[in-house]
Amino acid sequence: MPTADTSCDILFFGALGDLTQRKLLPALYQLERAGLLHADTRILGLARGSEPAESLTQSEASLRRFVKESEIEEAPLRTFLGRLQFLNFDFGASEGYRDLKALLDEQPGRNRIFYYSTAASIYGMISENLDAAGCIDERSRVVLEKPIGHSLESSHEVNAAVARHYDEAQIYRIDHYLGKETVQNLIALRFANNLFGNQWNQNHISHVEITVAEKVGIEGRWGYFDKYGQLRDMVQNHLLQLLCLVAMDPPSDLSADAIRDEKVKVLKALRPITDDIRDTHVIRGQYAAGEIDGKPVPGYLEEPDANVSSDTESFVAIKAEIRNWRWAGVPFYMRTGKRMPEKLSQITIHFRQQPHYIFDPEQRKLAENRLTIKLQPDEGISLQIVTKDQGLDKGMQLRSAPLQLSFSQAFEMTRVPDAYERLLLEVIQGNQYLFVRRDEIEHAWTWCDQILANWKAGGAPLPYPAGSWGPDASDAMLTADGRHWHEQE
Amino acid sequence: MPTADTSCDILFFGALGDLTQRKLLPALYQLERAGLLHADTRILGLARGSEPAESLTQSEASLRRFVKESEIEEAPLRTFLGRLQFLNFDFGASEGYRDLKALLDEQPGRNRIFYYSTAASIYGMISENLDAAGCIDERSRVVLEKPIGHSLESSHEVNAAVARHYDEAQIYRIDHYLGKETVQNLIALRFANNLFGNQWNQNHISHVEITVAEKVGIEGRWGYFDKYGQLRDMVQNHLLQLLCLVAMDPPSDLSADAIRDEKVKVLKALRPITDDIRDTHVIRGQYAAGEIDGKPVPGYLEEPDANVSSDTESFVAIKAEIRNWRWAGVPFYMRTGKRMPEKLSQITIHFRQQPHYIFDPEQRKLAENRLTIKLQPDEGISLQIVTKDQGLDKGMQLRSAPLQLSFSQAFEMTRVPDAYERLLLEVIQGNQYLFVRRDEIEHAWTWCDQILANWKAGGAPLPYPAGSWGPDASDAMLTADGRHWHEQE
Repeated sequence: MPTADTSCDILFFGALGDLTQRKLLPALYQLERAGLLHADTRILGLARGSEPAESLTQSEASLRRFVKESEIEEAPLRTFLGRLQFLNFDFGASEGYRDLKALLDEQPGRNRIFYYSTAASIYGMISENLDAAGCIDERSRVVLEKPIGHSLESSHEVNAAVARHYDEAQIYRIDHYLGKETVQNLIALRFANNLFGNQWNQNHISHVEITVAEKVGIEGRWGYFDKYGQLRDMVQNHLLQLLCLVAMDPPSDLSADAIRDEKVKVLKALRPITDDIRDTHVIRGQYAAGEIDGKPVPGYLEEPDANVSSDTESFVAIKAEIRNWRWAGVPFYMRTGKRMPEKLSQITIHFRQQPHYIFDPEQRKLAENRLTIKLQPDEGISLQIVTKDQGLDKGMQLRSAPLQLSFSQAFEMTRVPDAYERLLLEVIQGNQYLFVRRDEIEHAWTWCDQILANWKAGGAPLPYPAGSWGPDASDAMLTADGRHWHEQE
Repeated sequence: MPTADTSCDILFFGALGDLTQRKLLPALYQLERAGLLHADTRILGLARGSEPAESLTQSEASLRRFVKESEIEEAPLRTFLGRLQFLNFDFGASEGYRDLKALLDEQPGRNRIFYYSTAASIYGMISENLDAAGCIDERSRVVLEKPIGHSLESSHEVNAAVARHYDEAQIYRIDHYLGKETVQNLIALRFANNLFGNQWNQNHISHVEITVAEKVGIEGRWGYFDKYGQLRDMVQNHLLQLLCLVAMDPPSDLSADAIRDEKVKVLKALRPITDDIRDTHVIRGQYAAGEIDGKPVPGYLEEPDANVSSDTESFVAIKAEIRNWRWAGVPFYMRTGKRMPEKLSQITIHFRQQPHYIFDPEQRKLAENRLTIKLQPDEGISLQIVTKDQGLDKGMQLRSAPLQLSFSQAFEMTRVPDAYERLLLEVIQGNQYLFVRRDEIEHAWTWCDQILANWKAGGAPLPYPAGSWGPDASDAMLTADGRHWHEQE
């Protein structure tokens, strides 16, 4: 869909915030540079307590800082800054919204995109004020940033408050993982490749691994993170979204609701983490002092501003089970943590071994096909296959070797678009399939809340040294099933 | 099996012939260099009308010529030449065999390997003389070079003559394609990879292509080739062997007879090329003048020594069908020819398209997974998959991209062993699985003889310009099925 055909007004609430300055404006600038913004599109930044001229200066500085130097082109940058208009705006005061209405009405009949880049606690208030001032029409769209709440109850409140003023079809809930090219590619990989699609079930797949590992620690946001922890911050959204995309039944078409209906079915089929499996199926960890790249780093409780008695987790490993026809008996092992040895996000599909083995029995351990979808650091696909080892003295010895596809190499891409570029483009185009529907979020919270309740009931996270792959218990969880985590392909 | 543990006597009949000098001695030298020949192993060259000293000199010159300079190492070369002993030998005179017996008896209890690198017409005579002189015992093995006959009847005669003196378990019939690493790798690929093995049937595969294209023409052996033609020279052996390895049911184990039983089942299930399908299922061609790499080359009938009225084919394309449960309805398109645009041997497995398509219908043509096993020029595997096209403006556009494995890259091999090295090693070790059993050859001849009879009944090969992929009719044969040949991946 040629975006440049559609003019719109894009409004950022919280326009001087970290996300807008670091991610959203740079992403929009990239759309500008790619010719994907309509000539008449306006961008309005709403921020409290800053003079518009100063805000503009600050934004230009941010663009020059957060866009790669080689991607700064003066002509589109000028055009982009020319669209950008700031308002000194008090989110709680109705006058501002009346002025905003007048400004929007200068260009009637446009799509309006309200991007809420503020705390979720004021999403309801902003919506109410916008609505009261007559700013919301049926062509308006609202973009909600995560986190939407910290539990089922609180996310329900936020969603309900927004839902009073927008239909679900107007609401775009961000999970920036869905904007990653490789994540979208999962859909192509599964549904455009019969070779994989045919075998995407418990008959042919033994288990699935999902790893999202960060090398960084808390990075100066201890107070914020400590209230959430890794489960809320990563599992409830990103990891469960990845799990849904891997596990969902094939949608009948690519419409947003066809896809999201299937994702919700997966979330509803997740085996609840009840008391009897809380210790065998969930491992939580908290990093202690250790080493990253050979340099000593402090533990979670020794970080600046740390509350030394916190039992917030910086690592979670979960053995998830999906109780449906496709996945009965196939564990989905998920893990995510901070201060891991490397930055690594990948999904590994393990295909079952063949029932009969005619090669050297000692080589049977090789006899597994694995499909790895790499999200970070390099996006690509790798399929581990077994081949005859080469060489005169090898006879019929086997070895495992990867068939590989690196996107950056294969497509000769000079740059992989940032997730926010894709997502902003989809909002402008009015495509919801990369956004999270309300029932998805709520089912994900239902499942996570039970884990949180288990934790609240007692116990503390297991320590692991910074620079390791988490507590030993995480490895032991797989060992108990005769398996192990895979970091490399 | 550590070969160097087994000493043996290896005897070449026709030791000054092109094959022995160009291929067999260099291959044995490579085994020497790799430490795979037992210290006591003797190599005896039998040739008529040449003084032993001269034969030795000639053989050393051949080694220096046909082994890559970088692979000539003086120490193993000396050792190798030290083992090599020539006899001026008349294959038809019984005295020579008595002397041979005496020479062999100097080292009793050894495996004896009689390598017949002569015309097949004297295999029977040599066998009879060897047997009469008492040279053949139960530890003796005989290696038969192709061509074994030029029809079912003549191959039957040769096989029967040899069978009077050896058990089938002692007979090693060479098809050097079976010694290629990639061809053996087919066995690993099919039976050690559940991902492929599961789908290796008519439910999941739509069709198979086998191409063995040569760039060369007749190269000074017009008279020889003209008596055989491409069907006898390439299809009856190499292409049918490849077809068997692709199509056979999984053997219960890797024993020679388990594998060959399955291959024979395929040959027996081949749909005979009867009169009603002779024109739609078989295309024969003969190259006319044309260009290779931009240089003019003569046509088949214009080559030196050519009989200008020959209707021998230099190209064959066949749509083979296998009438069994696994392959009903799946054509195996085979083609082989001389003076093609490039030297290319590969097998391509086309997996079926998915039953339902949710992407842009115009992209459906992409939606096919293809597995290509490349034999020449570079040995490797390539799996064509469909992925999301990358790039901001691409939305859910798809593209086809290959997952690739190059053996030389993946295994950091400095050299790929020649097929004869592998085959000689297997003979020394007493493994028959890479050799052709008598019933295989005879069933292959039965099928080919019917094609030859059709041709004899009338018609002439279709001309095609040198440097093309054969007559248009070859392409049309696939077009009629809505398909086309694939040269590149």
